[in-house]
Amino acid sequence: MINVAVLGYGTVGSGVVEVIGKNKEEISKKAGEELGIKYILDLREFPGDPYEDKVVHDVDVILTDPDVSIICETMGGIEPAYTFSKRALMSGKSVCTSNKELVASHGPELIRLAKENNCNYLFEASVGGGIPIIRPMNYSLTAEKIDAITGILNGTTNYILSKMAAEGADFEDVLKEAQEKGYAERNPEADVEGYDACRKIAILSSLMTGKNVRYEDIYTEGITKITATDFVYAKAMGRSIKLLALSRENGGDFYAMVAPFMIPVSHPLYSVNDVFNAVFVHGNMLGDSMYYGRGAGKLPTASAVVSDVVDCARHAGKTIMCFWDTENVKLTDVAQVKHKFFVRTKAELEKKALEVFGSVGVIEADVAGEFAFVTDEMTEKEFAGKAEELGCVLNRIRIES
Amino acid sequence: MINVAVLGYGTVGSGVVEVIGKNKEEISKKAGEELGIKYILDLREFPGDPYEDKVVHDVDVILTDPDVSIICETMGGIEPAYTFSKRALMSGKSVCTSNKELVASHGPELIRLAKENNCNYLFEASVGGGIPIIRPMNYSLTAEKIDAITGILNGTTNYILSKMAAEGADFEDVLKEAQEKGYAERNPEADVEGYDACRKIAILSSLMTGKNVRYEDIYTEGITKITATDFVYAKAMGRSIKLLALSRENGGDFYAMVAPFMIPVSHPLYSVNDVFNAVFVHGNMLGDSMYYGRGAGKLPTASAVVSDVVDCARHAGKTIMCFWDTENVKLTDVAQVKHKFFVRTKAELEKKALEVFGSVGVIEADVAGEFAFVTDEMTEKEFAGKAEELGCVLNRIRIES
Repeated sequence: MINVAVLGYGTVGSGVVEVIGKNKEEISKKAGEELGIKYILDLREFPGDPYEDKVVHDVDVILTDPDVSIICETMGGIEPAYTFSKRALMSGKSVCTSNKELVASHGPELIRLAKENNCNYLFEASVGGGIPIIRPMNYSLTAEKIDAITGILNGTTNYILSKMAAEGADFEDVLKEAQEKGYAERNPEADVEGYDACRKIAILSSLMTGKNVRYEDIYTEGITKITATDFVYAKAMGRSIKLLALSRENGGDFYAMVAPFMIPVSHPLYSVNDVFNAVFVHGNMLGDSMYYGRGAGKLPTASAVVSDVVDCARHAGKTIMCFWDTENVKLTDVAQVKHKFFVRTKAELEKKALEVFGSVGVIEADVAGEFAFVTDEMTEKEFAGKAEELGCVLNRIRIES
Repeated sequence: MINVAVLGYGTVGSGVVEVIGKNKEEISKKAGEELGIKYILDLREFPGDPYEDKVVHDVDVILTDPDVSIICETMGGIEPAYTFSKRALMSGKSVCTSNKELVASHGPELIRLAKENNCNYLFEASVGGGIPIIRPMNYSLTAEKIDAITGILNGTTNYILSKMAAEGADFEDVLKEAQEKGYAERNPEADVEGYDACRKIAILSSLMTGKNVRYEDIYTEGITKITATDFVYAKAMGRSIKLLALSRENGGDFYAMVAPFMIPVSHPLYSVNDVFNAVFVHGNMLGDSMYYGRGAGKLPTASAVVSDVVDCARHAGKTIMCFWDTENVKLTDVAQVKHKFFVRTKAELEKKALEVFGSVGVIEADVAGEFAFVTDEMTEKEFAGKAEELGCVLNRIRIES
């Protein structure tokens, strides 16, 4: 019998308990031994809950119980999850987490701690919810030099942008509807400003490089400035607007970025809609590959946590290889990163725009009083200079080919 | 130093040597020890090849060398690959293969043999080329009851169908072009008749059930009867025609099938074009997930073989869990499987068709002298009876919703 404790009986934590309950037979078979929930840590009581008697309020009950070998940390946030995870690992208990903030902030330290104590710190659920992506990066793409990752990593923003594209609606209206449906938080900042996607691409970038990519170093831009008018142009261009989180390695240069991009209909990420997520990975031998699925939600995320539990059970007493060193990666200054830009300005500035930006592709769409175009490839810095010279940019969106 | 031998220096075998050569540093890091090619088995000589001195003609040199711990079997076909693989495993050498025929025919026996000898028989490259799908099935989706797999598993047929869709061309013309480009074999039967996809879905179905799904039991229909006219209708219906390989489990019933299907634009497999492959997996907790990439080709396939080599190196002396018993799965009689059918008949049979098939959805398209419609859901047997009663079916294609 493998005894599991769950820290935090919220959405994901209760999902973990449900997944283990519902698929007990399969999971125990795959784990090689029967799996059971011994404790659930939560400050609240759950009268009437079938697992009521498992609920404890003191983490020490769990951390000092030698029968508990695997802990699911589904609390979210840095503290107390960080302290609890460290203590668990130091006592040789493996930790499986869905906590992207904690993984992005303290991943390498917790991985090292697991190694020193012959246990595991696994975090499949921290990126892409139910999509297996961490394990493919660590176990499957081991013959590859991965040079590019491009992801739609946040379900809330993808839902909002998909709705805006389909209905021609404005950001604020769709956000309100998403909040009513429970697809967006009452305080939606972490999603719509791109902070959530930033944590996730920091984790994937770290696994890609084998070193530490600090999320604080990643240029991050959200979707709050995207309007219905931008989608009118996108449609005319045969493109969609997606919040992309990307990492690129090129001859020693490395950068990561989160921002809205216009992507063409031929791009596999074009048809990733609603709350679905997808991660597009390019390797030097494999070429393109993509992983697609539900990026959030109680059961998909819990399923990923439980797949980590199974992995811990299979590797009891042994640390699974994971390359994520504490050494920080020096990111290329974003000012030097090159893109093409879609630009909207006032109709009366057409002549000046052509003078300032030179060779551009003019975009014809049914928008009164505007002049819109796509620039040649240029650095962010060059673009900023030209935009200032032009004097009025109604909006600008980067182009992904 | 981990010494690897490659059996068969053809496309995939030479790719394995190339991948290990080009990404040696990464691969050795991931494997935990330096990897090197010690032998290449082939009947031919390769004068001037950088690995010329590694080439041997006698498999016994490899099988009796205690320094060789991992063997890549990239010969294809049943014999002598089967005998060589058995002998390798019996001497405790792990085998990594791209040989779908052998895996589909003798997988469970070779997996058991590996287990008995504390080594591994791994076959990531046997399905979906470079797409990580075997490992996600075995390692990642361990908390799931998988109830449906739907795959585009053959690059040649997907290339042909994509071309037919894009250009309105006929099967024979596109096949000829594909043969000229090297995308189709001179004898294309294994691809265009669906036999290749059948082997692959047999492997995935076996991993899905944990038992043995015999490829001989799987109903298999190729794409040779698909015409340019079918694509005229498909376009009018907002659908595409894809060769799907599928497995479905429903309340103890299980069936697998390979056949052309019409799929809607909203289906994630709709935009999988050209030589790309994709596998769509549905789990009871996770919902939909998809794995997409290059389904064939020298380097993608070789990359998958080498990822298995890395896995063997990481698990030296230990057998990685794989559930694929020798017990055969009893498949539901295909006559009892239900689908909707797209049907083309002669214009003069319109009245009779409506009498025989009852409630149908009539398809309007610019095709002279024909009447086309989509039936309600019915069993294959019912459909066959009604088609006989109608007397003339120009073509019929199953519908995937």
